[in-house]
Amino acid sequence: GSDLELKCINTIRVLAADMVQKANSGHPGAPMGCAPMAHALWSSVAAGGAGRVHSAKSPGWWNRDRFVLSNGHACALQYVMLHLSGYEDCSMEQLKQFRQVGSRTPGHPENFCTKGVEVCTGPLGQGISNAVGMAIAAKHLGATYNTPDFNIITNKTYVICGDGCLQEGISGEASSLAGHLGLGGLIVLYDDNNITIDGNTDLAFTEDVAKRYEAYGWHVQTVGDVANGLGDLQKAIEEAKKVTDKPSLIKVRTAIGYGSPNKQGSESSHGAPLGDSEVAAVKDRLYGCDPNEKFYVPEDVAAFYKEQADEADAARVAWEAEFAKYKEAHPDKAAELERRFNHEMPEGAFYDLPKFVFGKDKANATRKFSEACLNAVAPKFPELMGGSADLTGSNCCQIKGAKDFQKHSPEGIMVRFGVREHAMAAICNGMFAYGAFRPFCATFLQFAGYALGAMRCSALSKFGVIYIMTHDSIGLGEDGPTHQPVEMLESLRAMPNMNVFRAADANEMAAAYEMALKNVHTPSVICCTRGTVSPLENSTKEKAMRGGYTVVEAEGDSAPDLVLVATGSEVWRCVDAAKALQSEHSIRTRVVSMPCQEIFLEQDDEYRNSVLPGNVPTLSVEASSEHGWHRFSHAQIGLTRFGMSGPLEELFVKFGFGAENVAAKGKEVVDFYKQRGGNVPNLNDRPHFVNFTGPDH
Amino acid sequence: GSDLELKCINTIRVLAADMVQKANSGHPGAPMGCAPMAHALWSSVAAGGAGRVHSAKSPGWWNRDRFVLSNGHACALQYVMLHLSGYEDCSMEQLKQFRQVGSRTPGHPENFCTKGVEVCTGPLGQGISNAVGMAIAAKHLGATYNTPDFNIITNKTYVICGDGCLQEGISGEASSLAGHLGLGGLIVLYDDNNITIDGNTDLAFTEDVAKRYEAYGWHVQTVGDVANGLGDLQKAIEEAKKVTDKPSLIKVRTAIGYGSPNKQGSESSHGAPLGDSEVAAVKDRLYGCDPNEKFYVPEDVAAFYKEQADEADAARVAWEAEFAKYKEAHPDKAAELERRFNHEMPEGAFYDLPKFVFGKDKANATRKFSEACLNAVAPKFPELMGGSADLTGSNCCQIKGAKDFQKHSPEGIMVRFGVREHAMAAICNGMFAYGAFRPFCATFLQFAGYALGAMRCSALSKFGVIYIMTHDSIGLGEDGPTHQPVEMLESLRAMPNMNVFRAADANEMAAAYEMALKNVHTPSVICCTRGTVSPLENSTKEKAMRGGYTVVEAEGDSAPDLVLVATGSEVWRCVDAAKALQSEHSIRTRVVSMPCQEIFLEQDDEYRNSVLPGNVPTLSVEASSEHGWHRFSHAQIGLTRFGMSGPLEELFVKFGFGAENVAAKGKEVVDFYKQRGGNVPNLNDRPHFVNFTGPDH
Ligand SMILES: [Ca+2]
Ligand SMILES: [Ca+2]
Repeated sequence: GSDLELKCINTIRVLAADMVQKANSGHPGAPMGCAPMAHALWSSVAAGGAGRVHSAKSPGWWNRDRFVLSNGHACALQYVMLHLSGYEDCSMEQLKQFRQVGSRTPGHPENFCTKGVEVCTGPLGQGISNAVGMAIAAKHLGATYNTPDFNIITNKTYVICGDGCLQEGISGEASSLAGHLGLGGLIVLYDDNNITIDGNTDLAFTEDVAKRYEAYGWHVQTVGDVANGLGDLQKAIEEAKKVTDKPSLIKVRTAIGYGSPNKQGSESSHGAPLGDSEVAAVKDRLYGCDPNEKFYVPEDVAAFYKEQADEADAARVAWEAEFAKYKEAHPDKAAELERRFNHEMPEGAFYDLPKFVFGKDKANATRKFSEACLNAVAPKFPELMGGSADLTGSNCCQIKGAKDFQKHSPEGIMVRFGVREHAMAAICNGMFAYGAFRPFCATFLQFAGYALGAMRCSALSKFGVIYIMTHDSIGLGEDGPTHQPVEMLESLRAMPNMNVFRAADANEMAAAYEMALKNVHTPSVICCTRGTVSPLENSTKEKAMRGGYTVVEAEGDSAPDLVLVATGSEVWRCVDAAKALQSEHSIRTRVVSMPCQEIFLEQDDEYRNSVLPGNVPTLSVEASSEHGWHRFSHAQIGLTRFGMSGPLEELFVKFGFGAENVAAKGKEVVDFYKQRGGNVPNLNDRPHFVNFTGPDH
Repeated sequence: GSDLELKCINTIRVLAADMVQKANSGHPGAPMGCAPMAHALWSSVAAGGAGRVHSAKSPGWWNRDRFVLSNGHACALQYVMLHLSGYEDCSMEQLKQFRQVGSRTPGHPENFCTKGVEVCTGPLGQGISNAVGMAIAAKHLGATYNTPDFNIITNKTYVICGDGCLQEGISGEASSLAGHLGLGGLIVLYDDNNITIDGNTDLAFTEDVAKRYEAYGWHVQTVGDVANGLGDLQKAIEEAKKVTDKPSLIKVRTAIGYGSPNKQGSESSHGAPLGDSEVAAVKDRLYGCDPNEKFYVPEDVAAFYKEQADEADAARVAWEAEFAKYKEAHPDKAAELERRFNHEMPEGAFYDLPKFVFGKDKANATRKFSEACLNAVAPKFPELMGGSADLTGSNCCQIKGAKDFQKHSPEGIMVRFGVREHAMAAICNGMFAYGAFRPFCATFLQFAGYALGAMRCSALSKFGVIYIMTHDSIGLGEDGPTHQPVEMLESLRAMPNMNVFRAADANEMAAAYEMALKNVHTPSVICCTRGTVSPLENSTKEKAMRGGYTVVEAEGDSAPDLVLVATGSEVWRCVDAAKALQSEHSIRTRVVSMPCQEIFLEQDDEYRNSVLPGNVPTLSVEASSEHGWHRFSHAQIGLTRFGMSGPLEELFVKFGFGAENVAAKGKEVVDFYKQRGGNVPNLNDRPHFVNFTGPDH
């Protein structure tokens, strides 16, 4: 490469080393090794690079070529590139604040913190899987909104990833699907540096990665050492761009910590600052420049990247002119695209959600109600795109009449994810990150445990992915405890920014869908039963949208003798139990349905206390871990063990969720406090306070 | 094949179809398609099979060839084979009780329910990954206990798996590692039937599986249609046995639901009974026998399998004679093997666990205490074998002086799992299932979310795997929220049969290790801090072994004014807060440390009430989701949002876990109830009852 090319690459290396050194924390090795790849991705074709288009002035420009740093620990690299390209969030001041509380340059990339960062990466394997979602999104959107006269969506998705990402199973799942789908818009640069945290990759990772990716149906190339210039990298990227029916992997031989006289090529440069003297030695060795100068960008380097950024942005300017013409020619399509990218609700969005009429409509499984709701909103929300991990029928998540998204039908909206739950969730994250999508995906609730790493990324990244999780309790029945969730509801409820719905009937399911779609930046898990639930007489969508409400009031005007609080398939059993308690023991029983704890907790104190008074004996009933229910109830009917294989109604009785046991235990609770002179500890009599101090990002 | 061979295979098919039909639930297609493979695995070499050794009379015989049905939904097949081989748990009566409550033939294989079943399979990808663990176990044990004159451990591990298992990322992780380790004892038969639940594998799975496995370093063979006899399958198995330095994949073309005139080769035979008339048609078509005869085993078929079972068992009889001689020649080795397989504690097992002397020993991170404890017990427990998912140094889980288990050093006990958390946990399950091991593994607590599917299998299967999970809170610091666990402690606490430890100091860590090792059938998660904790003055291992205890008592003899309850790195901060509350506000404060909620909850009422009286204002402090703490406390300092990137001490203060905020909030809690006339709702005043009715398995 030219002298300037090498100078640019070395500037990146030294800046990254400075950042890590000043923070006294972080990962210098990967940025130094990957600097040539970053240089290629931030340079025009004329300058020997990839000609990736993006815009520092408008980081959210729809048709930007996405970039994902899958090895997120190398984020100093990404911040440096954003800085050199003029992104506001990565000022030199922010580079100096790397990894500090409240900075825009946190220890791993965070999409909600730094403009120019597409997704949260760091948990290995997520980024490359997100990128598969982005490539799906681009391909589908292009197929749907481009016209013979206008190509509005044409962007590519670039990834840098390391061995760590490729060892994770999630990346194998996503890559297999990407190959199957022939995602030509996806180009992955593999930082093949032979080093992992523990040492040489020989310790645990000796497979033939290139061959594996060929087996997935990818276009695979290998590029030799790029330490001192791009060499054949540009040629390989150009080749990759030409292959439009396969995703591309370019295996690039790099050296971790390149330029560090004592740590280059060693795991010692991976996860700790190099040390002041070693950073100085890098500067000396790479530049022959002043080892004491810190955070230094030579003028010609700054000018170079400014020029590259301007050229990248010129594409955006041209695109905007083009889009203005598109808007004139195709106003409906343009308006819909704008609505989708702005996450605005379509007109009459929820008008067709089913309303269950008691005594008229038929009892059914809540997964069937979910299917009805999904199909009611889908025609209004073309941004609803997704599918199941090979359980389409069981999950009841087929949008009627919708085509599959496949290699030769990119306009389809149903994605066949295969038996790949973790990648499925990560792909949905990528589609959401792309913009203009409300992805949904489905499996058995139990197998949320396979996808949790990516579901957490939905919550953290504020991606309103919709998870349809059926077979949500021991009510799964005969498949047995390997398939019956016990702890999963509590796992998800304990996760910040994740709404967990468990509807008891069709009206509550309608509420779940409306809330899920309205909460654009909170993912939702819609839990559904396999088995039939009896309809509730007094449920409405509006009541259910408060998260919890009284579904059966106790007789008389004074406070009830007992409150039963339940979710999903347990609610109607509580209604039956309440009737029995009244008729057999004159115990005046209120039944509360709690389709979403998170939303109930967001209601004001007055409303919450009106539903759950706290000083009335309260029994919670949920066919799941009782772990978190002590907040809402004095006693619990729940699970403290795993389920069993058997017919579901038998299991409900065996585990104590039959109406008869609920009534018996309800009476016990009432008697327990009666014997104590009616002294019921008030569950609501608790102080509340905020502990988080100071400003957030 | 011979007429008898085909008759045997068809008998298996028809029995499995009968079971599913009678249960009116289950998966007939896979057993019918896989029947030839099962026939091969349950037949001697002379009879055209694999000559797999096992013992119906002694199902736990150490040197049996393990068999794992990774596609566990095909379990009717396994129960049929166990029945035909004379395994007591699978009597004809039990075959008729398939999928019924309390039967020995549940809807997916359960190791704790059915003798002859090695592991719980059904969650796809687990079984094949468990098998990798079994092959590691066998290889290590053979290398350690075989002598030039005696080969005591020589068994192989056989697997049947389907496309579902091979689509899951976990199997890719495990298979890559198996190839790296050259596990020649592992032979996988891949049921290549071109069908998944959603339909043809063309929908989502078109990769070249054989090539992928070659890329992993496996020995790969393809066998054509076996529907009407074993064809080349025996030859392929013999070849696989000869390859001792690579695991083997044999891709076998099968037809799902083979024999069903209307459903063969279709996904409609996968997950639902064929229907009475279709089962009758199968009988007619396959046999020309009475379509109304159910659960029928022709005499010659019964005799054949009895003969095979006897031959397989003869190996066990011979082995026992051999082992008797081994025992004479190598009494120490034999005794250790027996102790290991019996899960007996070694002599002086816990004698060397460190005792922290307050005022003398140095403060440190609890991950360093974990390292000390691991190294204290490791010399006594050679059955402790494991390692980290590429974070050995950060997890502090290196056993000093121990060699790596690698292809050419199978006697090593440190496993380099690579960046493969999910497979790591599943491999540990396989090692535990093998017997004679107490596997341990390590990663950051946050990445338990990647491994949860397999960790749950540890708990369900009663496998006492030890999980060392470091960086257990926002105290991870600069790496930021992608790496900081929030919900993970609660996820794991909500899981049945999983003990979650979070030690506050070295003595509590010793308790965690002793309890983890003693609880052979309960997995343990040992959560550790990255940062230094101040030592506690009054902690002891013995107190900590009760799960929760008073670590600082309030001044004076009467009940305290306030109880602070905390875990791990928050305990010493509470101790500081308690001092401030006493000195500044004369609030007499007890501090309770709760290293293990599960074990605390197992203590008797009297003890629990003596530690947490319930009617004293109680504030819990844990740098994690507050979700489950309402049970133990009136108010919580916890997390309801994700963390941030920054230095750990700053984060603790920002999120309210500094001693100053703990003291301030402690005072608020006291004042809150004072204003209410001292009326403190008693958290212990709750009825408790058991809901589970009738006998367990
Ligand atoms: Ca690497
Ligand atoms: Ca299949």
